[in-house]
Amino acid sequence: MTDLRAAALDALAQQTIELPSWGFGNSGTRFKVFGQPGVARDPYEKLEDAAQVHKHTGAAPRVSLHIPWDRVDDYGKLAAHARDLGVRIGAINSNLFQDDDYRLGSLTHPDEAVRRKAIDHHAECVEVMRQTGSTDLKLWLPDGTNYAGQDDLRARQDRLADSLQQVYALLEPGMRLLLEYKFFEPYFYATDIPDWGTSLLHCLALGDQATVVLDTGHHAPGTNIEFIVMQLLRVGRLGAFDFNSRNYADDDLIVGSADPFQLFRIMNEIVAQGAHRPESKVNFMLDQCHNLEKKIPGQIRSVMNVQEATAKALLVDREALATAQRGGEVLDAHGILMDAYSTDVRPLLAQLRESQGLDADPYAAYARSGHQERIERERVGGQQAGWGA
Amino acid sequence: MTDLRAAALDALAQQTIELPSWGFGNSGTRFKVFGQPGVARDPYEKLEDAAQVHKHTGAAPRVSLHIPWDRVDDYGKLAAHARDLGVRIGAINSNLFQDDDYRLGSLTHPDEAVRRKAIDHHAECVEVMRQTGSTDLKLWLPDGTNYAGQDDLRARQDRLADSLQQVYALLEPGMRLLLEYKFFEPYFYATDIPDWGTSLLHCLALGDQATVVLDTGHHAPGTNIEFIVMQLLRVGRLGAFDFNSRNYADDDLIVGSADPFQLFRIMNEIVAQGAHRPESKVNFMLDQCHNLEKKIPGQIRSVMNVQEATAKALLVDREALATAQRGGEVLDAHGILMDAYSTDVRPLLAQLRESQGLDADPYAAYARSGHQERIERERVGGQQAGWGA
Amino acid sequence: MTDLRAAALDALAQQTIELPSWGFGNSGTRFKVFGQPGVARDPYEKLEDAAQVHKHTGAAPRVSLHIPWDRVDDYGKLAAHARDLGVRIGAINSNLFQDDDYRLGSLTHPDEAVRRKAIDHHAECVEVMRQTGSTDLKLWLPDGTNYAGQDDLRARQDRLADSLQQVYALLEPGMRLLLEYKFFEPYFYATDIPDWGTSLLHCLALGDQATVVLDTGHHAPGTNIEFIVMQLLRVGRLGAFDFNSRNYADDDLIVGSADPFQLFRIMNEIVAQGAHRPESKVNFMLDQCHNLEKKIPGQIRSVMNVQEATAKALLVDREALATAQRGGEVLDAHGILMDAYSTDVRPLLAQLRESQGLDADPYAAYARSGHQERIERERVGGQQAGWGA
Amino acid sequence: MTDLRAAALDALAQQTIELPSWGFGNSGTRFKVFGQPGVARDPYEKLEDAAQVHKHTGAAPRVSLHIPWDRVDDYGKLAAHARDLGVRIGAINSNLFQDDDYRLGSLTHPDEAVRRKAIDHHAECVEVMRQTGSTDLKLWLPDGTNYAGQDDLRARQDRLADSLQQVYALLEPGMRLLLEYKFFEPYFYATDIPDWGTSLLHCLALGDQATVVLDTGHHAPGTNIEFIVMQLLRVGRLGAFDFNSRNYADDDLIVGSADPFQLFRIMNEIVAQGAHRPESKVNFMLDQCHNLEKKIPGQIRSVMNVQEATAKALLVDREALATAQRGGEVLDAHGILMDAYSTDVRPLLAQLRESQGLDADPYAAYARSGHQERIERERVGGQQAGWGA
Repeated sequence: MTDLRAAALDALAQQTIELPSWGFGNSGTRFKVFGQPGVARDPYEKLEDAAQVHKHTGAAPRVSLHIPWDRVDDYGKLAAHARDLGVRIGAINSNLFQDDDYRLGSLTHPDEAVRRKAIDHHAECVEVMRQTGSTDLKLWLPDGTNYAGQDDLRARQDRLADSLQQVYALLEPGMRLLLEYKFFEPYFYATDIPDWGTSLLHCLALGDQATVVLDTGHHAPGTNIEFIVMQLLRVGRLGAFDFNSRNYADDDLIVGSADPFQLFRIMNEIVAQGAHRPESKVNFMLDQCHNLEKKIPGQIRSVMNVQEATAKALLVDREALATAQRGGEVLDAHGILMDAYSTDVRPLLAQLRESQGLDADPYAAYARSGHQERIERERVGGQQAGWGA
Repeated sequence: MTDLRAAALDALAQQTIELPSWGFGNSGTRFKVFGQPGVARDPYEKLEDAAQVHKHTGAAPRVSLHIPWDRVDDYGKLAAHARDLGVRIGAINSNLFQDDDYRLGSLTHPDEAVRRKAIDHHAECVEVMRQTGSTDLKLWLPDGTNYAGQDDLRARQDRLADSLQQVYALLEPGMRLLLEYKFFEPYFYATDIPDWGTSLLHCLALGDQATVVLDTGHHAPGTNIEFIVMQLLRVGRLGAFDFNSRNYADDDLIVGSADPFQLFRIMNEIVAQGAHRPESKVNFMLDQCHNLEKKIPGQIRSVMNVQEATAKALLVDREALATAQRGGEVLDAHGILMDAYSTDVRPLLAQLRESQGLDADPYAAYARSGHQERIERERVGGQQAGWGA
Repeated sequence: MTDLRAAALDALAQQTIELPSWGFGNSGTRFKVFGQPGVARDPYEKLEDAAQVHKHTGAAPRVSLHIPWDRVDDYGKLAAHARDLGVRIGAINSNLFQDDDYRLGSLTHPDEAVRRKAIDHHAECVEVMRQTGSTDLKLWLPDGTNYAGQDDLRARQDRLADSLQQVYALLEPGMRLLLEYKFFEPYFYATDIPDWGTSLLHCLALGDQATVVLDTGHHAPGTNIEFIVMQLLRVGRLGAFDFNSRNYADDDLIVGSADPFQLFRIMNEIVAQGAHRPESKVNFMLDQCHNLEKKIPGQIRSVMNVQEATAKALLVDREALATAQRGGEVLDAHGILMDAYSTDVRPLLAQLRESQGLDADPYAAYARSGHQERIERERVGGQQAGWGA
Repeated sequence: MTDLRAAALDALAQQTIELPSWGFGNSGTRFKVFGQPGVARDPYEKLEDAAQVHKHTGAAPRVSLHIPWDRVDDYGKLAAHARDLGVRIGAINSNLFQDDDYRLGSLTHPDEAVRRKAIDHHAECVEVMRQTGSTDLKLWLPDGTNYAGQDDLRARQDRLADSLQQVYALLEPGMRLLLEYKFFEPYFYATDIPDWGTSLLHCLALGDQATVVLDTGHHAPGTNIEFIVMQLLRVGRLGAFDFNSRNYADDDLIVGSADPFQLFRIMNEIVAQGAHRPESKVNFMLDQCHNLEKKIPGQIRSVMNVQEATAKALLVDREALATAQRGGEVLDAHGILMDAYSTDVRPLLAQLRESQGLDADPYAAYARSGHQERIERERVGGQQAGWGA
């Protein structure tokens, strides 16, 4: 057990979690976006807030951007700003859902001109990647239909394959396409990439630089997500996670808040296949909204939740587990896994943080830091960042 | 069968479906609201559009209002405008989700001052009822929490009971409170009125003027909705429907578009208990969004879908059905119901409309009427109505 | 915190969990029942196995019986056998699903003679209660239909109300009717008591001796079960739990194995309202199948899981929680709850057991006890108990 | 429209639906199997009953066998018996769930000897194929686990891939492997082939003779099944359907009884890609249980339901639909599809049957035929066929 703890500390010290810039802007539901005092007003302020999360956790050194929400005149300057704050730019997210032209689809649209526009948008994103040093282009395709018969499902799929090929052709060596799937929303009859199978089929057709993004909120009720993690790792195509929690739909709650055991089981498959190590290239990203709670503490809590789940997964006694599994000892094998889950890993993580010169409790440290009061005081006037901003 | 058809025509002639004013404004998802040319810019224009639906279907003589979206200076004038257009004001909907004060709840809020504000809002709604001749106060409680522990579920329920009592006390004789439940959204951990049981418990505590609203999109996956219809009728507390369709969450699609057989089964329970008759006081309302499709034709199609489902339910041979059920003839009984469902009732409804001096096909008649072109041409400038308007 | 731990130990010492006799017989799915060596062959042996669970956990002093599976000639003798083993007879479960006459229903059957038979069966159960000293009559109504139209939903409900009244009339003072609901299975179109609302309506109509049973596996996907617990406590009608775990349907897995956080949230509502105390009369029962794992260790693990969830709920700092909730501090309030959940309570429970003269680890103690080897060796020949036995 | 009807008649005349031998034996739930008078007692009698379905519908000329349920001494004789009755042997189904050795898995079992046994069972099935002239080997893998940690998900997948390769190697040219997936049951934590993506991955690894079976009851709630149909057709790997209906889990109800509009949408994707034609090699099979209703009429009703859904799909005005879709006319496009669905196709199918010398109403014709009375009278004694038989 001592050895497991030492190895866990080692692995945890290398684990990084990527933050979403949009997690620091206002968000909400179709019914209401509640504003909050001190919320960032531009990409520079979002990076400042993200840097606070890294400062206190030591585990969140990258920030995803979303284009056009994070459009700036000078991306080199933005990247330098990030570096000055101790973080760097992560994945670049394209946006295929906020233009009036996309009412009936983007990369799948019946009209070639609309598809062209959607493809060209990715050229802009790749240019942002070049200027910021990003290597991951993340593409969530929101396309879908609301009514049976509204469009031809097969034709949409064929147009999608064609469009994706053109997007893929924009990539330079060393760049990856991260292709996300989602069960439903913003359309409610059919979604054009609704499941991992569809995403994977397109990735396989595109080539080695295309991998699947698994958003933990994008599945049908009851789906065993850790199985999909295992399967995508098995075929070498798990590119990234979008972490968050769901109880019902794509609720975008704080990761680990709705079902911490599920997060543990996911990290257990990751650790079992060694995919927690940086060389696996799996990008562990957060994709969350903080509709009610404060943004920065919400992200800090999220990073801590991923760390705790990872720590527990690292404490699984895999030798004993394999023995029990081979022997068909159902209860023993389950019990060995549960022993790790039942462990209180907060002291272990406190130890890690203190060894890194950090406060043992990032959440409390941030609360004491005065940053929240400062931004609430200083960020007055202007337009707070949000999904439409 | 001839007799059934004659009786069906008779019943269909008396059936009315209430339209939502907000169905004629822009709507969308949290990701995007797509605007449409010609969309109404104020409550007067919404009524004009709603009147078109009634003009062509002959079955939609009432329009629900939503306060504050439909706030005007002079409600008497608005009601007169409706009468001039051949329709009248139906239920008044309160709004408990669009004020910054309601971030943590409205009628359930921990702070008494916020609860007071939410209760007072209903006094305004009751005043609108008085001035417009409306008898139904519809209350959908959006309150809920996003995280376990965020608030005390029991305390919220007790505060809700207290607030509802104060709202109920505002009602005059002849007025009803319609209390809606919803499985989830806009909150994602716990909803304070999540199911028909909770809504009914509060109605029973309030008194005879309180009844339940069943929104067909507000249930967990797999819920047998017609069972709930039956149960609420059985205890005399089904006040109204909010009709729409769902495949996943509260999708608010056109009623009958996702599962027409379900709509038929619902109307079958209604007809079996005689609740389709006006004296039952069940208010058949639409509550839909038309995010992609045109508003007025979307509502026309919806009214037609309800009519078709009702017509099929009226054609069920209930005598034969009862005999087969009593005899335990499973396949025969099921077959008798399916015979009615398999019937093409469009000719029957065409006959009904022609007997009323209407076009046999309301959808086509509207398309030919020129109204759509006129509003797209004339309604330029100003702010289109929408959820935030 | 010291005070919370002391109070928790006190409360845990009083907590009891009731075991199901059928959990010690063979069980399975419609596809296969896998037999296991040493499984009990009659009610006497089931009691012996149940007594093992109590011997090692000290928390399981009652055993539910199921009639006819546990029919014996002399119930007084069976009860005495239980007492000799250190346990006693708990709830008596009736069976309305294993007679050919019940193909189309039992208490709801169209034929009065079948309903009579089903009612009379409860007279037998009440007689067993008298002879064994049981006070709880548990009634799960499996009735339902497979096809729309197969039977009249309303008529079935009315017949049910009438039958239940006759069953209720059989009760003596001090006896309770525990009425269970279930989302679906063994019928797949409509279930006659599908939700807590229906069960509660019937209980309210019957009288004070009727209460609801909440089986944790009997809900639609996504249902917030702790909300229902809160609501039933609020109206004073939560009679009992049937504890188990589900991922999909009524999977009947070990309680706490699929979603330990859900079990904690349920126990948190229980503790918040003081319903963990014996005087609340809430009966905490297990209702599980052990299809793959050994029966006795499976039940021991289950009892331990309920104890751990209860212990965590008892460690919630309710004063701090209430303060954070009143202040609208979303993340703080959630964090206070999670702090209790993150605590490793196994040492606390070990302390409890040792103070009671028990081994700190009941699972390991049973494994060492030799009982399993003894029953596998001795129980040879005869028919193992099972659902049909 | 006349042309569409003529073409539809032509296509319907070529459509065939395969019957499951086990649909003519007793079946039920884990709670109870209700026996019925006259149920077949051996494979020969099952074929006689299946032949009745074909006799009256003219559309069900093949019968799937299930090994070992349909084991006989002389398969040549059984095939000849089928031919004499006017039908022939269809797919051969293997059984991996009814042996005590399979408690922890079959093709995925940790123990090589158990895997070997499961592989060898397919050699027997291929031998039955040779002797009966069957070309389809259908493999549903029931394997899964009940508890997290019980076994290693990845190792199971690797063992599965290896086992499947050995099964695949048994196939002769012209034989196909049909690989089925299922969301859950008989295991409740993880299923080893839970979705179409996993099934397809294995088929792609195996080779061209491996295709996916889509059972309409084997998906998560809310899954858009017609999308999967489209996708599997697009990649050329839809081998067969297992048709049935579900409301909740794998309910195995009569196809088209729970959601006839879904069945229509599925057949619409089939017809849109021409896959209804015999040369597509898609095998349209029923896989149903008739727990409450009579077996032969239940199968007749099912065949009729598939025919009606197909007829409606054939009546879709695809030219008008494509125009509306290209033009982005959401409501028009949806309306064109719904027009076909709203059509009463029973007269068209009556016409088809009469042109084939059949009664217009197969269900009524069977009822009049006296077969049911004869088998209820004659099949006395012996053991009725069932899942364990």
